[in-house]
Amino acid sequence: MVLVTITSDFGSLYPAAMKGVIYSINNEATIVDITHSIPPSDIKAGAFALYSMVPCFPPGTIHVAVVDPGVGTGRRALVIKAEDYYFVGPDNGILIPAATRLENMEVYEINTEFMDNDISSTFHGRDIFAPAAAYISKGSHPKDFCNFTDDYVHLDFSGYVINDEYLRAQILFVDEFGNIVTNIPGDELLRKVTPDSVLSVAGRQMSFLKTYGDVLRGDLLSLIGSHSFLEISVNQGNASKLLHLNNGHEITISILRVKKH
Amino acid sequence: MVLVTITSDFGSLYPAAMKGVIYSINNEATIVDITHSIPPSDIKAGAFALYSMVPCFPPGTIHVAVVDPGVGTGRRALVIKAEDYYFVGPDNGILIPAATRLENMEVYEINTEFMDNDISSTFHGRDIFAPAAAYISKGSHPKDFCNFTDDYVHLDFSGYVINDEYLRAQILFVDEFGNIVTNIPGDELLRKVTPDSVLSVAGRQMSFLKTYGDVLRGDLLSLIGSHSFLEISVNQGNASKLLHLNNGHEITISILRVKKH
Amino acid sequence: MVLVTITSDFGSLYPAAMKGVIYSINNEATIVDITHSIPPSDIKAGAFALYSMVPCFPPGTIHVAVVDPGVGTGRRALVIKAEDYYFVGPDNGILIPAATRLENMEVYEINTEFMDNDISSTFHGRDIFAPAAAYISKGSHPKDFCNFTDDYVHLDFSGYVINDEYLRAQILFVDEFGNIVTNIPGDELLRKVTPDSVLSVAGRQMSFLKTYGDVLRGDLLSLIGSHSFLEISVNQGNASKLLHLNNGHEITISILRVKKH
Repeated sequence: MVLVTITSDFGSLYPAAMKGVIYSINNEATIVDITHSIPPSDIKAGAFALYSMVPCFPPGTIHVAVVDPGVGTGRRALVIKAEDYYFVGPDNGILIPAATRLENMEVYEINTEFMDNDISSTFHGRDIFAPAAAYISKGSHPKDFCNFTDDYVHLDFSGYVINDEYLRAQILFVDEFGNIVTNIPGDELLRKVTPDSVLSVAGRQMSFLKTYGDVLRGDLLSLIGSHSFLEISVNQGNASKLLHLNNGHEITISILRVKKH
Repeated sequence: MVLVTITSDFGSLYPAAMKGVIYSINNEATIVDITHSIPPSDIKAGAFALYSMVPCFPPGTIHVAVVDPGVGTGRRALVIKAEDYYFVGPDNGILIPAATRLENMEVYEINTEFMDNDISSTFHGRDIFAPAAAYISKGSHPKDFCNFTDDYVHLDFSGYVINDEYLRAQILFVDEFGNIVTNIPGDELLRKVTPDSVLSVAGRQMSFLKTYGDVLRGDLLSLIGSHSFLEISVNQGNASKLLHLNNGHEITISILRVKKH
Repeated sequence: MVLVTITSDFGSLYPAAMKGVIYSINNEATIVDITHSIPPSDIKAGAFALYSMVPCFPPGTIHVAVVDPGVGTGRRALVIKAEDYYFVGPDNGILIPAATRLENMEVYEINTEFMDNDISSTFHGRDIFAPAAAYISKGSHPKDFCNFTDDYVHLDFSGYVINDEYLRAQILFVDEFGNIVTNIPGDELLRKVTPDSVLSVAGRQMSFLKTYGDVLRGDLLSLIGSHSFLEISVNQGNASKLLHLNNGHEITISILRVKKH
């Protein structure tokens, strides 16, 4: 049993085309949807979704990610091998944060001349990435249909500031509860801010706590989320709607009071 | 082949983390999504969704349900065995209506000391419930990592009134057609109201019929839905939007005229 | 391994009931969701979704489609065999465009007397179509529980005009990017209009190009989509919202200038 995951901004329908193609090549694959609700063309949100899933899946998993505003243009198609995992998708950075969580990253460019099927200008998820994932799932090595490359689009979640007075952060992802996931790594934050400290964002105070139920229903809080980044949340509410903050926004979080333990 | 189902209010992304964890422990499992669109923190709607699915799945199925506003607080984690089915989720009542459809219910509290993985404060679906379901799917008995308990949070769908003049009901669930599912059991209702009777809700008359197509497109009707509860619907329309009624609301339905057969 | 796909307007929850029924009968099936986001009761959009998927799936696949406003009324239930594919659903046309992509179509009416389970008036997806698909997936022939028929509801995507000055089209489908899929076949269009020609719709000019990235972000364009029909799109935007056009609308597209090659 080989796991193939799919991450995209496709909503429904198009992911099924990819699944049909994969099963047509390898009817022993097990396919898992990561999400198909990435905001359209939001490469960084797609990269975060994939990144957040890497530790949950077993070695051998093949992760396909398709947020692909450059489909049909000159952008290249990649397969990355890192440890015993594979990543397949467009060369726009979406695979990079996930792959760099692992050791021994090897990057390959897909040579589409090795593909048996026609290739459309608008749906490489179906015509390139799904077949590539299926070939690997059947035991092909990337070298069988790719060329090694060391030239690819980079992406990371850096670009934050942590000092004694404030944090400056980007919003990587808003989940369906409205929780706001920032790019501030939890371990770095914990060197500055201790639990029960008081922060503020957008003019509102919030405590830095362990979990949602540590504040009253409807109250704002901050915490280190299950993906290990600083997250801003409302207990049983929607922080994104309350604060009018969304993917890609930059925010400043003031450190009002650090609790001494 | 063992079936593991997942019911949650997670939307997308987080269910995939649970699936990765389950497959990491048991790569022979078959995972089925019940729904991940339960309104956030609506434990009763989650309980209804799971309850409605019990008769559709074969013995041996392991149902995981995670609507969990109390995650990371003192609330306990449960495994319930009833007949040859298993239910895994938080101790907030979500599992109870489903489990009590079956005989010989045994309730266990998960002893998280037996878990191999770290446990976050915010995502027990991934860190406790998914591994617990996976252990059972591989043949573990709940006793291997749980303690028997007879103290757990109860939940049922009672709290309705049926008399000769009116029905008083709670709305358990609104589906994606806008059909309003109440907590009035169909078999009890049929002792009072016969097909072709006339009811009213929110000042509007509606016939009590067999199926949507028994009224004109856009007309209101009531019927016993596929889950065996009284349902209020609009043929090819959205009763929830028409009547401004939603999950958790209480409604009174007048019995205007009972058809004599 | 046998593939069973499901297409519906159910949103979530109800598809899981169908899956439970299928696995209860055949625990070796592999089930793939095509989409459950068809607009409620939009038979033609459902027919398009299924049609678009046929070439992606391998022989032996059993496609179930349930957009079924006539459930519980006199409408019949069909199984269609064409080449080595099967189609299961209501007799309202939803299966026909997909099945007629293939050769040797045989149409059967399901004889529900052969079903082991009770049949509700409101959910034949669970009570008729899922069991029928599961029987076929286990090797039953349609003749085992159906009667041959040559009387069924027809549906096709005709009803367009192509001439030297304009195209008149119906909108079959709007995807989750807001791309507008018309019923104009790409191969017929290419006899009139060459790449880089200029068209207009709703008073706005658009080039006829190969892919989204051929125009600036936010610009309108037309192209032959991955499903081989004329599609109207906005690069990294939402054409349906921009033009206020949706499923079922009729549109006229003017041919302003045909590029000579």
